[in-house]
Amino acid sequence: MKTRIEQQMDFISETDKVKDIFRQTYVGEKLRNENDAEHMWHLALMAMTLEEYANAPVNLGHVMELVVVHDLVEIDAGDTYAFDPEANRTKRERELKAADRIYNILPKDQAEHFRALWDEFEDEKTDDAKFAVALDMFHPLLMNNNGNGAAWRDHHVTEKDVMGRVEKMRPGSEALYQYCLSVIKKNIEKGNIIGKR
Amino acid sequence: MKTRIEQQMDFISETDKVKDIFRQTYVGEKLRNENDAEHMWHLALMAMTLEEYANAPVNLGHVMELVVVHDLVEIDAGDTYAFDPEANRTKRERELKAADRIYNILPKDQAEHFRALWDEFEDEKTDDAKFAVALDMFHPLLMNNNGNGAAWRDHHVTEKDVMGRVEKMRPGSEALYQYCLSVIKKNIEKGNIIGKR
Repeated sequence: MKTRIEQQMDFISETDKVKDIFRQTYVGEKLRNENDAEHMWHLALMAMTLEEYANAPVNLGHVMELVVVHDLVEIDAGDTYAFDPEANRTKRERELKAADRIYNILPKDQAEHFRALWDEFEDEKTDDAKFAVALDMFHPLLMNNNGNGAAWRDHHVTEKDVMGRVEKMRPGSEALYQYCLSVIKKNIEKGNIIGKR
Repeated sequence: MKTRIEQQMDFISETDKVKDIFRQTYVGEKLRNENDAEHMWHLALMAMTLEEYANAPVNLGHVMELVVVHDLVEIDAGDTYAFDPEANRTKRERELKAADRIYNILPKDQAEHFRALWDEFEDEKTDDAKFAVALDMFHPLLMNNNGNGAAWRDHHVTEKDVMGRVEKMRPGSEALYQYCLSVIKKNIEKGNIIGKR
């Protein structure tokens, strides 16, 4: 039987693996793919920087907790590309199984707390979760725009694909959603995103 | 003159560069070097997991803010290896110059807020900063131990070197400091850390 601190150290050590779960978004201009640890860190920094654009007042510390754990399930479930309908059909099942294993490395009280944070993020019902989800949708768009649209071009992403993602930002941040519309328009004009035909 | 939201987006985009500032600590068992974004994310997760070991009650959200920004100066100043005395002599000067540039990409009120967070971390005077610093010292030790001591062996690190680092944990967390002593002892026995002769 492991002690409390041993269980906590096991959890921290296990989560090192999320640094090797790679996303379809690039760091810089196609320098390499971004990993989940980098993505979650950037979301935490974005929460600090963009809090004023949340539709409703949020608890910043709690939003940061939500974003810092939200992709841990991908250690087992892998990154599910937003524009892959087949993979998205099995995503929920794979992630639930992952959550059961990963959070339960922690002592019981903390396993329940971390799981509750993940459930809150996934349910998108609280103001904090809505804003956290808006940031999660916004981050790849901003990174892809900075990388001159390489990730969009490489995956032949369409206006409809991207609009489907950014629509999910509206419950959390209408202001950031509006900002996205101008970014998308510019990238359609540049041919980075395939516009409606 | 840029608008407020343009300045904020410029800041978020600029901080993408911290994903390519590499530390002397390895991910996994010498898979590759860890970068600052991954390190800061892991510190935020550790703050959530290990809060109970802080010497004094801390504001978790504020601790997370401290750790999520503390290494941004390294975008310009680079990572200064803990056991490089020459580089450490010029560290403060390089990082002050970096802070002046990087935080001032933000609108003035936010530039001041982020700079104040960095100053608080560096000053190590508040309970939140002491705990954040303890986590910052603890993280590489835990990662190096998980990687079977490869980073210590590659740099011929001595017991005196490591003890100098972990002593800095005591103002923030005596409990985590005590945990480190057993980790260090084990790694001296394994020959990963060079013991006193």
